Amino acid sequence: MAEFELIQRIAQRVRPRADVRLGIGDDAALLVVPPGYLLAVSCDTLNESVHFAAGDDPRAIGHKSAAVNLSDLAAMGAEPTWFLLGLSLPAAEPDWLDAFIDGFVGQLEQHGATLVGGDTTRGPRSIQVTAQGLVPPGDALRRDGGRIGDDLWVTGTLGDAAAGLAGLGEGAAHTYLRGRLLRPQPRVAAGIALRRRARACIDVSDGLLADLGHILRASGAGAEVHLADLPTSQPLREAVPDSVARGSLQLGGGDDYELLFSANPIDRRLIERVVEETGTPVTRIGRLVETPGCVVLDAAGQPFIPPRSGYQHFAGDSA
Amino acid sequence: MAEFELIQRIAQRVRPRADVRLGIGDDAALLVVPPGYLLAVSCDTLNESVHFAAGDDPRAIGHKSAAVNLSDLAAMGAEPTWFLLGLSLPAAEPDWLDAFIDGFVGQLEQHGATLVGGDTTRGPRSIQVTAQGLVPPGDALRRDGGRIGDDLWVTGTLGDAAAGLAGLGEGAAHTYLRGRLLRPQPRVAAGIALRRRARACIDVSDGLLADLGHILRASGAGAEVHLADLPTSQPLREAVPDSVARGSLQLGGGDDYELLFSANPIDRRLIERVVEETGTPVTRIGRLVETPGCVVLDAAGQPFIPPRSGYQHFAGDSA
Repeated sequence: MAEFELIQRIAQRVRPRADVRLGIGDDAALLVVPPGYLLAVSCDTLNESVHFAAGDDPRAIGHKSAAVNLSDLAAMGAEPTWFLLGLSLPAAEPDWLDAFIDGFVGQLEQHGATLVGGDTTRGPRSIQVTAQGLVPPGDALRRDGGRIGDDLWVTGTLGDAAAGLAGLGEGAAHTYLRGRLLRPQPRVAAGIALRRRARACIDVSDGLLADLGHILRASGAGAEVHLADLPTSQPLREAVPDSVARGSLQLGGGDDYELLFSANPIDRRLIERVVEETGTPVTRIGRLVETPGCVVLDAAGQPFIPPRSGYQHFAGDSA
Repeated sequence: MAEFELIQRIAQRVRPRADVRLGIGDDAALLVVPPGYLLAVSCDTLNESVHFAAGDDPRAIGHKSAAVNLSDLAAMGAEPTWFLLGLSLPAAEPDWLDAFIDGFVGQLEQHGATLVGGDTTRGPRSIQVTAQGLVPPGDALRRDGGRIGDDLWVTGTLGDAAAGLAGLGEGAAHTYLRGRLLRPQPRVAAGIALRRRARACIDVSDGLLADLGHILRASGAGAEVHLADLPTSQPLREAVPDSVARGSLQLGGGDDYELLFSANPIDRRLIERVVEETGTPVTRIGRLVETPGCVVLDAAGQPFIPPRSGYQHFAGDSA
């Protein structure tokens, strides 16, 4: 199968959008950006043996490749619109490709976005996604908007994907936790609902403490996190009965793709209402404080020293 | 070196642009798209051992990674604006990274664009670039605008990069041909000058015949190409004295990143003037005809059968 056929195969699977003046098949796509919006753009790469295993279901890899990029737009409060897909493959594999594209495009369509272009090339299996979205100026959720005294909130539950990665749990709990790892649900609707309401926002991809650290650095604040308040799924409770072990997974484990955000305490009721209207659970887990750094307090109000502080892509190297 | 430090290192090297509301360091960049423009967007991946060799100068790899993506925008007649860079690296290598970024950002700056975001991750060395640019609606150069009777034109000279890849030539000629392969000059100014003047346009990345094939399919036309008219650099003449061998390199060799375009014969003088005003040589090499397919004619007017028909990324596989 030549590159041209690969591209045709992908193009046939894609539904058009009215604002795509020219889609897959030219040197670039041509897109109509409506007036009154900023363009939000980000990219993420998923490599075999790093972000997924060689034998993983290609449909799930497709889903996740789209979801982690949708999650970046969600963290900005942006509405997803146009995606590009760069695929490096060791060989042309029509069955793998069809299943991958099915998972990828299905996830985009679920959130109203479409694929407008990309690139296929030979190489170790790797997936590069560029996500574009729209957000009105002033509405975007950034990392640097947090203020001392803000509540700290998180959507959904934490630690599930880390438990899934470790293969914890049995039966239905195991299946649930693996599903959270392999098919994350980006919080697109919650991100849009939080426009002008959240002050700082990020998605939890590298782990709660690691991602909270980005908000703290950008906002010039410290944080206090209450371990007992971290939202915990029933399957995680079943799989990991010990609350300390669970706490470590929840503070350090990546790949949950929940939104972590800060907001004015005056807006507590409003936050709960607007986020829950999108079908998303939301939980207060702490607050922003003046003292730099992050203190995690256990149920007795004592400092909890987490054994792990999030995923660092190059942590094994020293510069 | 952690990912955070890698990103800081890159961010320090980047010059801001007024239309970048939020650049490197958040979940997404936020960009101001001016009214009256379409957004042009494309992406390209360069993999080690496929698009560059392990020992290649990282500055040249950086240059080329930017240039091939700038070339896609040039082929649309778009003005380059905002780029994203996804880097997969087997380990954190500060010296390699500094040289790479220097070549990459230097090329962007030469064409008025800037880096607004990206992603670094561990994996086999691979570079993924997303290029964004602007073009007024109606001005974009597409592949499907060619009409029967159009002149076929190409900028610059052909076959140099293929000769450089084969290591042909000696002394200054060898150096020149290698330079054409390793540090291509994207025809950004020529692409902008061709707005509304060219009818179909593409950049020559996979080889003249392969890329012409894309124009022919999209425009529903055939072509006649005159071998003797293919623009040939003096170093290529020195390195490959035989005109048949040269012709093969020029028809099949990729990586020249010249613009191949069609235009109304009425506009010959205008085309020459506007493109040459940008400092870009331009040559007529044939025309679009009704008969499907592409016929190459030698100096005697006889069909020339090229031994090679362009680079196919997956040509080794059958579907």
